[in-house]
Amino acid sequence: MSVTAPAGFRAAGVSAGLKSTGNKDVALVVNDGPLDVAAGVFTSNRVVAAPVIWSRQAVADGVARAVVLNSGGANACTGPEGFADTHHTAEHVAQALDVSSGDVLVCSTGLIGERLDMTALLGGADAAVAALALDGGDVAAEAIMTTDSVAKTVVVTATDGSWSVGGMAKGAGMLAPGLATMLSVLTTDAVVDAAAADTALRRATARTFDRVDSDGCMSTNDTVLLLASGASGVKVSTDDLTDLVTRACADLSRKLVADAEGASHDIAVRVTGATTEAAAVAVARAVTRSNLFKAAVFGNDPNWGRVLSAVGTVPEDVAPFDALAVDVSINGVQVCRAGGVGEDRSLVDLAADREVHVVVDLHAGEAEATVWTNDLTHDYVHENSAYST
Amino acid sequence: MSVTAPAGFRAAGVSAGLKSTGNKDVALVVNDGPLDVAAGVFTSNRVVAAPVIWSRQAVADGVARAVVLNSGGANACTGPEGFADTHHTAEHVAQALDVSSGDVLVCSTGLIGERLDMTALLGGADAAVAALALDGGDVAAEAIMTTDSVAKTVVVTATDGSWSVGGMAKGAGMLAPGLATMLSVLTTDAVVDAAAADTALRRATARTFDRVDSDGCMSTNDTVLLLASGASGVKVSTDDLTDLVTRACADLSRKLVADAEGASHDIAVRVTGATTEAAAVAVARAVTRSNLFKAAVFGNDPNWGRVLSAVGTVPEDVAPFDALAVDVSINGVQVCRAGGVGEDRSLVDLAADREVHVVVDLHAGEAEATVWTNDLTHDYVHENSAYST
Repeated sequence: MSVTAPAGFRAAGVSAGLKSTGNKDVALVVNDGPLDVAAGVFTSNRVVAAPVIWSRQAVADGVARAVVLNSGGANACTGPEGFADTHHTAEHVAQALDVSSGDVLVCSTGLIGERLDMTALLGGADAAVAALALDGGDVAAEAIMTTDSVAKTVVVTATDGSWSVGGMAKGAGMLAPGLATMLSVLTTDAVVDAAAADTALRRATARTFDRVDSDGCMSTNDTVLLLASGASGVKVSTDDLTDLVTRACADLSRKLVADAEGASHDIAVRVTGATTEAAAVAVARAVTRSNLFKAAVFGNDPNWGRVLSAVGTVPEDVAPFDALAVDVSINGVQVCRAGGVGEDRSLVDLAADREVHVVVDLHAGEAEATVWTNDLTHDYVHENSAYST
Repeated sequence: MSVTAPAGFRAAGVSAGLKSTGNKDVALVVNDGPLDVAAGVFTSNRVVAAPVIWSRQAVADGVARAVVLNSGGANACTGPEGFADTHHTAEHVAQALDVSSGDVLVCSTGLIGERLDMTALLGGADAAVAALALDGGDVAAEAIMTTDSVAKTVVVTATDGSWSVGGMAKGAGMLAPGLATMLSVLTTDAVVDAAAADTALRRATARTFDRVDSDGCMSTNDTVLLLASGASGVKVSTDDLTDLVTRACADLSRKLVADAEGASHDIAVRVTGATTEAAAVAVARAVTRSNLFKAAVFGNDPNWGRVLSAVGTVPEDVAPFDALAVDVSINGVQVCRAGGVGEDRSLVDLAADREVHVVVDLHAGEAEATVWTNDLTHDYVHENSAYST
């Protein structure tokens, strides 16, 4: 049910002809209220697609009634004409829904540097408006897929069942912080105000989507939106909202890693004993960015020397620790102890499972953090050398 | 002739049995003076191998008489025992040469996390001392190879022929700033003091070895050493020394990129119109670190969207520029103009040549810089998943 699981939402997913495959490529999510609260988090890339420029501005007032999303074209690096296309799309959908165009958010994903086929897109938007349904969440999730092999959806319900958070996401590979290369729309029927929605979404993404890093690359279109309808009538605290939104984002993040292009392993790099959470993230990020380490994991080689080499690249002022105190364990085997040789690396079996758990203990403090990544495989190289984005 | 091209040096390269292949694995370079000036630049990784700890300390006084280098083992992450092994090696060579052990520098390269076979290494050191020759530069260069497919050497002679700089380097892949994963020994017969040697080496490496970045990874053993014998009797200025050492380092750097593990393209990313050279380097580095861009080059796809996405990840305070002003050309074709679509990308032919030239014009200032990298290939993944380092 994804985005239509919480009360107050309708959605649709249709084939507009933007994808050469004929697969669904236009999705629409509508908030029927009574509230029209919205929040958004966007890529920190300075090169941003037209829909990011539009939606960042449109959601700044904390209000939105609908999100129209297309796959089959990113509308990035398309100049003023590309921005006009996004604006036109928002106006077109707003008119069909009888809302203000400033309350219609737009997301696009696909190839950079090409204009969208606006005839196809607007036709698809009309078809999506006509197809809006209370159970449309799943087809909407399908319509935003690009190289995804499966649609990603989530529903998290409050313990007492009185309200919930639903969500959908697309993204496979190119996952990097700030944000992963992805689009995600989350919905809730909780009664919250715009400030609470914004706080919850920022806290949630900082610890979930911002901590999956498939290949270190950051896209021009990354967008995560949260819409609140208030239809449950249940007023919730910012902390409770943060909790459920974080659980929904964590689930979607894990699904993005599991579906990363060409990957054969999902790798959790957990850094413990750091002086601060930021230091732990910095060290974990250095490991998840090491092509050498990631290639070793693909080869089922528990190469702790490459982990330690990556750990050592983090500047002292970012993460204080003594390099001669660092322990590394891989899948529970402490292969590196105090910066030197630990247990026999042949005890580590990486072939048995898709998940790999690396723990780096800095022995410098009490903070910790986990960043997820994937291994570097032949299929990653193949998919990203043969497919333009 | 490599390191023995300048007057005042002898060298040797022998097989000590550290490499299972039986190939040469111990090299020795001796400065016969009259001067014994030396300078060194080392990895900025906080996890450093025993020989780096030793040599950094030993060269701090600006004096050295010899460098002993081994392939077949990095002696990194080997704890106090590993440091004792390095110390023992320096003492052993010092005794054989009748010099102070503090004037013998040590370099090691190979697998991390394993002790060296000291019997083999010391035997090799004795054999190297016995084999020292005025034309030993080429066999010394051969003995430091690991996954290198060719030995890398250089000789640069002053315009009037009165003095020269010679050098050798090893490294193939894992090239990252501060420094590339590499060992290099440079020699000169110029008359210079330690301060001049240090200044020249730092200036030279900052613009050469620090600007090759095959896969973003930084090693535990990276070392570049400069020895000056003064045997030419020609006193030279720091600027003249810097000039020749830079040319030697640039030549060796280019050879490292050309021999990077599994690469099929050498990519020069030149950033122009930057506010400062540091800003230009930061932007170039972001592009050379993009796995997506590097995989696209492997696929002969002139994917300027991936260049622009990488450019946009550099923070504003590091490199001020307007993302909507950026031009990108690939092999002379301006595929991106003012942040949008430029000339037809099909005009770019990446298949014709191993070299790829990317120019990013930020239109923000007058500074520029070039960073070299390689494409991301199946062979890179294969070599780094099947071979432990």
